[in-house]
Order: sequence, then structure tokens, then C-alpha cells
Amino acid sequence: MIGVDWGTSSFRAFRLGPDGAVLERRADSRGLLSVADGRFADTLGEAVGDWIAAGEARVLLAGMVGSRQGWREAPYVPCPAGGAELAASVIAVPFEGASVRLVPGVSALDAAGVPEVMRGEETQIMGVLGAPGMDGLVCLPGSHSKWVEVRNGRIAGFATHLTGEGFAALRGHTILGRMMREGPADIDGFDRGLARAGEPGGLLHHLFGVRTLGLTGRLAETAAAAYLSGLLIGHELRAALGSDAGGLVVDLIGAPALCDLYARGIGALGGRVRRHDEDAAAQGLAAIGGMTQWD
Amino acid sequence: MIGVDWGTSSFRAFRLGPDGAVLERRADSRGLLSVADGRFADTLGEAVGDWIAAGEARVLLAGMVGSRQGWREAPYVPCPAGGAELAASVIAVPFEGASVRLVPGVSALDAAGVPEVMRGEETQIMGVLGAPGMDGLVCLPGSHSKWVEVRNGRIAGFATHLTGEGFAALRGHTILGRMMREGPADIDGFDRGLARAGEPGGLLHHLFGVRTLGLTGRLAETAAAAYLSGLLIGHELRAALGSDAGGLVVDLIGAPALCDLYARGIGALGGRVRRHDEDAAAQGLAAIGGMTQWD
Repeated sequence: MIGVDWGTSSFRAFRLGPDGAVLERRADSRGLLSVADGRFADTLGEAVGDWIAAGEARVLLAGMVGSRQGWREAPYVPCPAGGAELAASVIAVPFEGASVRLVPGVSALDAAGVPEVMRGEETQIMGVLGAPGMDGLVCLPGSHSKWVEVRNGRIAGFATHLTGEGFAALRGHTILGRMMREGPADIDGFDRGLARAGEPGGLLHHLFGVRTLGLTGRLAETAAAAYLSGLLIGHELRAALGSDAGGLVVDLIGAPALCDLYARGIGALGGRVRRHDEDAAAQGLAAIGGMTQWD
Repeated sequence: MIGVDWGTSSFRAFRLGPDGAVLERRADSRGLLSVADGRFADTLGEAVGDWIAAGEARVLLAGMVGSRQGWREAPYVPCPAGGAELAASVIAVPFEGASVRLVPGVSALDAAGVPEVMRGEETQIMGVLGAPGMDGLVCLPGSHSKWVEVRNGRIAGFATHLTGEGFAALRGHTILGRMMREGPADIDGFDRGLARAGEPGGLLHHLFGVRTLGLTGRLAETAAAAYLSGLLIGHELRAALGSDAGGLVVDLIGAPALCDLYARGIGALGGRVRRHDEDAAAQGLAAIGGMTQWD
């Protein structure tokens, strides 16, 4: 089987063995944004046509390719959703020479009834916690960080935080960015921001402190971006975990450098992490593909 | 006496009677950013030279003109600071034909020891609460909203929130702005954002809800900016006042449309407001000028 994690700006393909082992892999920049005029079938053929010619007859696609902006919309499956629910809701798209299916996203309501959506993350989660009966809290940090509660191997609910994108907007487009200079990673600045998030006053007040600490010479220009990052991640962690995460274990999926920061923040609150790399997507595609009705 | 509120992008001059009454006023766009090569004296002469020629010999300037980026730096006066402390720390600058003084800014430390600064707002506050013995909480909403505690007619402490600038960055430079369309003021959208701020999950999570409510058709594109504004102002108010402001009276100084929104938010928490227009600056300049040693 072929599994593809196809996002807005990335395309990662895996040739998977019957046991889910990754036999071969490819990554390039054929993200949705690079696909003109709905040429998804052609793009897929260019990317993995040789694998199909060599005998792979099943292709499972996850990620934004299944959104309204993608190949075709695979409607969100409401929580609770596990591998079986996802596999039962895959959507077929026409393709010459292979069966191609799109994995749906997952929707939820938060505690106050506000809707939540994910697309792509559900597949990574299935790769990590897809075993029936497994419970846990999964965090996928990023532009839109996801905190996912898994119960009995199904996604029970989740909450998204606009942390990464908020960081970029605040750094790039407010007065805070004007006092920032590139420099080596400043883990001390990050830790200070993280600690600040636990003090009273609220995030909007803490943000202004990035400026005043700089103005008064108490925060170096090369440490200010790390401080801002710690501040935002610290607020996210406290909202997701409370101020005491003692005894809690969080499954962390994402880019290693970003997961380092989250692991550090979760540790500062007393919690522990289990780390998974982005190959979780390959494992999830294999798991969902194994439950999919292909004919 | 002549009083001038001279900010980064604005210039407002008042000709003041001995009792502080505004005899004449002028406002234009001669803000700091428009003054080239340090030509502050020339600019002042162009703006109010006729008033000086007609006999006004004292000119008091407040605002960013007293910052490092202005005419000359008038160092911050630490809290507690009232009219007497401000008047004792004015800085003279050379000017042909009149005595010209710069009002200093005010600095503080927040509860956690993080520095705070204001410049310009101290003069507006003196215009509103300058009377000795007056106590209260003053809010000056804006790009960098100030919450100021006044005790015995002096600024005892204050906290700044990056609300207005954060709003502009999030609206202009994140995915949230892509689902916003201009429309008539949507007070219902604002109220919904305000209420959302009182729900669990934290600001970064609430921000993502602007997107999902839009995606699911539960928030109109023309209401989304108002919702985001309510969300941020709601978080600011709860950080500044707590979730119950019953019995509290806040003195509100600023642009009328923005003060409308803050008054609405403070009212929703059970508090009341006293409103002051931006002429507070004129009253503050008169008050500080009356205590200044001019010779």
C-alpha cells in the first residue's frame, strides 16, 4: 500500500509493507499550494507512479488534500473517532490504475460548545495511539497546536491553540519584533518566558513585558524571540494542562526542535513526555489502510 | 500657557487660560514621525508661533516628544508619581522666545517585578484624577492599553496590555483575518467574543475558535473582526479586573468609539465607568504647568 501525508505545503509518500513497515519514502514540495487547476491525479502520478506501476494498487491520502481546498472534501467525522470510524468514512477519488482514498478529518465541540476541527493530525494520532484500548493525551505542536484526548483508542475530544501562528504574527508585525535580533538558540530566554506565563496579569499584559524588559536592558535582543516563544507555549501548556501536570504523560508528535521546547515546558509543570517523530503519519496510514474496505 | 500633547503620529496644541480652560485648540499630523533631522523647535514654531508672538511665554510638552526618539529624553519618574513629582522633573529644551519644558514619563514594576513604562498617559491621568486625595482605577484603552491605579492623586502603579496592537497583528497577519469582511459595526459579534473570554481554554485556544466558528457557519464574515475584538478586550478586562467587577468604577480616557466597547465590557463584568474625552490631556498639561517652576 502507498500512504501519503499531503498538506498545504508538503507532500510525504510512504511505500508500506503489509505489516506497516516503511519500505521506501519520498518527501517533496508538491503541497496543495503548488497544485494548479485541480491536477491532483496528475501530481500523484508524477510523485508515485513508478510504485503503482510496480504493483501497488492502493493509495491512501491524509491531510489537507481531503479538504475543500484539496482534491475533494472528505467530510469531518465527529468524535469519538478511531481507526474504524475513519476507515469507514474514507472517500474515493477517480484515478487510473489504483484505488485512491482520502482520509476524513475529525470534528469536535469544546467544553463550551465551540467547534473544533483537525485534518491530518487524526492519522498521526492513529499511528501512535491506534491500538484499541489505549488512553492518553496527545499534543501535536505547531502553527495550530492540537491537544487530543484519546480514550479506548479513539479521539474523544481535542482543543486547538493558535500558538505558532500567533507567535509569527506578534514577532513579525508588532513593536515586539523590532527589538529582536537573530542569534543562537537562547534556552534561558525561553525558560524565562515559560516562567513568566505562570505569573499573574494575563497573556496580553505579559506580551508588553517583552518590550519593557528589552527597553530596560533586562532582556537581550537575541533572547527576545525565545522569551516570546516561551511565553506563548507556557500559556498554551497551562491552558491545556493546568499549573500542575504532576504524574501526567503526554504523547508528543512533531518536528524534533519544537518538541524539545514542549517537552521542556511540560517538564517544568511536572509532567513527562513520550516522543514520536513525524513517521507517526506513516504508521497511521498503515493502520487506517488496514481497516479500509478497498473494493 | 501653551500645552501640547505630542505623540508619534499626532500633535495636539491647546492655548490654556490661567484656570486651565481651553481658549483655543489645534490638531494636525505633525507627529514625531513627520519631524525630520531633529527639527522640533522649528516644528513647534510653525505650529504655535503666532500664540507665542501674541504673548504666551510658557510651553509644556507631553508625550513621546520626551522620549529617546523625541526632542530630548525626559527620564521616567518612578511610581508613586503625581503632579508635583512630574512638575519637579520636567526637562527644559532651548527655544527662542518662550520657556519650553518636557513632561517626563512614569515607570513602575508590576507584581512580578517586570518593568512598566508610560509616556503621555500620565498627563491625561493628571487631568482626570489630579486632585490631591483622589483614588481610583483609570483605563486608557488603545494599542497598548494602560490600567492605572491612582492613590492620593498619584499614580501608584500600572499595567499595560498589548491589546490593540495584538488585534491588528492577528487580524492582518493570521488565517483569522482571511475570513473577515468589512461591514457595519457588529455589536452582537463583539458581545459574543466578550462572553467567550470568560470560558475555559485560554486566549490562544479561543483565537482558533474565530476560525472554526467561521468555517462552520456560526460566525458571519462581517462579525468576525468584532468577535476577535471582544475576545481580546474580554481577556484584558478579566486580567485587569477579575471576573467580578461589581461595585467598581473605572475612569475611562480615550477615543469615544473604543471607550464605548470598554464601557460595554466593564458593564458586563458588573462595573461602572466614568468617561473622559481626550481633552484630559489639556487638563493635565494645565495642572502640571501650574506646579512647574518656570524660571
